[in-house]
Amino acid sequence: METIEIKTPSKSYPVFIGRNTVRSLTDFIIGHYRLTGKIMIITDEKVAGLHLHTVKESLSQTNIPICEYIVPEGEHAKSFDVFYQCQSFALSENLNRKSVIIALGGGAVGDVAGFVAATFMRGIPFLQIPTTLLAHDSAVGGKVAINHPQGKNMIGVFYQPEAVFFDLDFLRTLPPKEWRSGFAEVVKEALIQDSDFYNWLLSSIGNLNDLTEEKLMHMIKRGIEIKAAIVAEDEKETGVRAYLNLGHTLGHAIEGLLGYGSISHGEAVMTGTIFALHLSQRRLGLDFDMQRFISWIHTLGYETTIDRDDKKSELLSFMKRDKKNVSNIITFVLLQKVGHPQMEDIPDSEILDSLSLMYSGK
Amino acid sequence: METIEIKTPSKSYPVFIGRNTVRSLTDFIIGHYRLTGKIMIITDEKVAGLHLHTVKESLSQTNIPICEYIVPEGEHAKSFDVFYQCQSFALSENLNRKSVIIALGGGAVGDVAGFVAATFMRGIPFLQIPTTLLAHDSAVGGKVAINHPQGKNMIGVFYQPEAVFFDLDFLRTLPPKEWRSGFAEVVKEALIQDSDFYNWLLSSIGNLNDLTEEKLMHMIKRGIEIKAAIVAEDEKETGVRAYLNLGHTLGHAIEGLLGYGSISHGEAVMTGTIFALHLSQRRLGLDFDMQRFISWIHTLGYETTIDRDDKKSELLSFMKRDKKNVSNIITFVLLQKVGHPQMEDIPDSEILDSLSLMYSGK
Repeated sequence: METIEIKTPSKSYPVFIGRNTVRSLTDFIIGHYRLTGKIMIITDEKVAGLHLHTVKESLSQTNIPICEYIVPEGEHAKSFDVFYQCQSFALSENLNRKSVIIALGGGAVGDVAGFVAATFMRGIPFLQIPTTLLAHDSAVGGKVAINHPQGKNMIGVFYQPEAVFFDLDFLRTLPPKEWRSGFAEVVKEALIQDSDFYNWLLSSIGNLNDLTEEKLMHMIKRGIEIKAAIVAEDEKETGVRAYLNLGHTLGHAIEGLLGYGSISHGEAVMTGTIFALHLSQRRLGLDFDMQRFISWIHTLGYETTIDRDDKKSELLSFMKRDKKNVSNIITFVLLQKVGHPQMEDIPDSEILDSLSLMYSGK
Repeated sequence: METIEIKTPSKSYPVFIGRNTVRSLTDFIIGHYRLTGKIMIITDEKVAGLHLHTVKESLSQTNIPICEYIVPEGEHAKSFDVFYQCQSFALSENLNRKSVIIALGGGAVGDVAGFVAATFMRGIPFLQIPTTLLAHDSAVGGKVAINHPQGKNMIGVFYQPEAVFFDLDFLRTLPPKEWRSGFAEVVKEALIQDSDFYNWLLSSIGNLNDLTEEKLMHMIKRGIEIKAAIVAEDEKETGVRAYLNLGHTLGHAIEGLLGYGSISHGEAVMTGTIFALHLSQRRLGLDFDMQRFISWIHTLGYETTIDRDDKKSELLSFMKRDKKNVSNIITFVLLQKVGHPQMEDIPDSEILDSLSLMYSGK
């Protein structure tokens, strides 16, 4: 088991990565929350069927009463209604300020459970057990939120967990789409911060279906280290943390346009990353083997084009509503070179023009 | 105009108190948010009719676009629905991370507006313009929240404003009930921290309807100073901040039982304070002239008894649900002597027994 310490101005906490880390959860809880009245696990329908039993069995050794609340799968978990239902359930179970909320699941479960923990009685302790590769990114750094029909993650706070338990065994049940979703964030982390890591990914990862434990461990660990360094420097996204949004400006717009959940977050981000790389070549003269990149991620199973030519203006207006924008001009994370991101304001006309490059058959 | 600097671990900010402080608001905004895209004022129906025009006129000098959202009066503003409507309105008005939310109103408006500001896009700047005496307490210290049918302020966060503008001119329109509501918190602040201030109140304030500006200023300033000192020491209520809950354990239960809004917060707290003083005499041998105290606050127009003898067990179960409780035993803030509070666990039987003292005709 490996441990990475996340140090933010508001809190420091460990991320445990390895096999069977869920066993360490029990020791952690006994060590930190011996007097806790209750543990509330928030998980989704699918993960409950796969892993809830294991987690509860492990937690039973703490002798602390456990209750669980099952939310819908994926982005459907991040609605106002589900948020309210979680709060009502917590109250009906008599949770108090010494209770602990555990998020067991992917990014969506972590987001809603974290927002519940952050706001229940003005904040109670919160632990993350990510069960997807994507959640290696979302479980670290304290961004928690729910969606509004007018935009993703529009309502939330920064709220750090007390610890993150990343159990590699839980990843074995993931479908290919989920591997792609998570791997897109790993690629993003490499692109913005570490060209050696990017080259390692490009040469070592030819297939997401049979990753060795060694490769998986390296990929997750390096990804989290990159994120941790950025979050340590800028917890509340007033500066460098924005670089983590490479690919997300268009990515969020694609998710919004298609309806949250109909495309995985990471797959949308990968399309957004290609777009950002195009813009980087055009605006900043990025020296990058685009053909090799596109061919590589195509092999990994990603779509590399956008289907619907007629939706350009809608994508543009979704991007304008992105919460990172503070004016009418859309700001993108671009790359000068791999490992060297910078923010660039891009005029609408150039966005529309470059979007054409992304459409299939053009 | 007087200025008190509030220093918390997460933020330092000024509280301006005096006549016409709303004029300073304009200078503050020009000084701090010149590049702000938009100002959103959240206020309630009543305050909008009385003071919105003054505030908007003053803000017009900033040349920043202004939008306003009117919420229902009192605790009705603190519902999930209103919270959601505020968020939707903010999105439809294209507020972004550089926008500013202003709370113009009493404690309820400040609570919901603060929670909207804290959670909109994970937190945008927030200014308070309290228009009630009660809000001298609630506008300082960063507690923001909405209510759940199962309990008051159950869903919220700690989120400090950027500044508070307390304009004494706005208090002139308050009805007697609102003066009583706010004055109860002033009495509480004196009781937990400053016996000289308590004696000054007792000898100087014989009528809430004709306070001189000098008395009003002294009372508000000293109250805020007491609160500021406590919040500086314990922003997130892990220790001494809990003393500010003197009278609130029973007070919240009375509000909950009667339905939020049917009794003013401070009036309920005053009844709770009498109860806490009774318990303090009984448990801690508090030396206190209870008869003089009750006669004084009776003169000021407060009810000093509880009406409904048959609701004791319901009051008890409301108190058990209070978010300050972390076990099945209810913890009260009591006084060893005036200015020296301490926390005490009180068994249910003793609570029920002492509650009998509070019923009219007994």
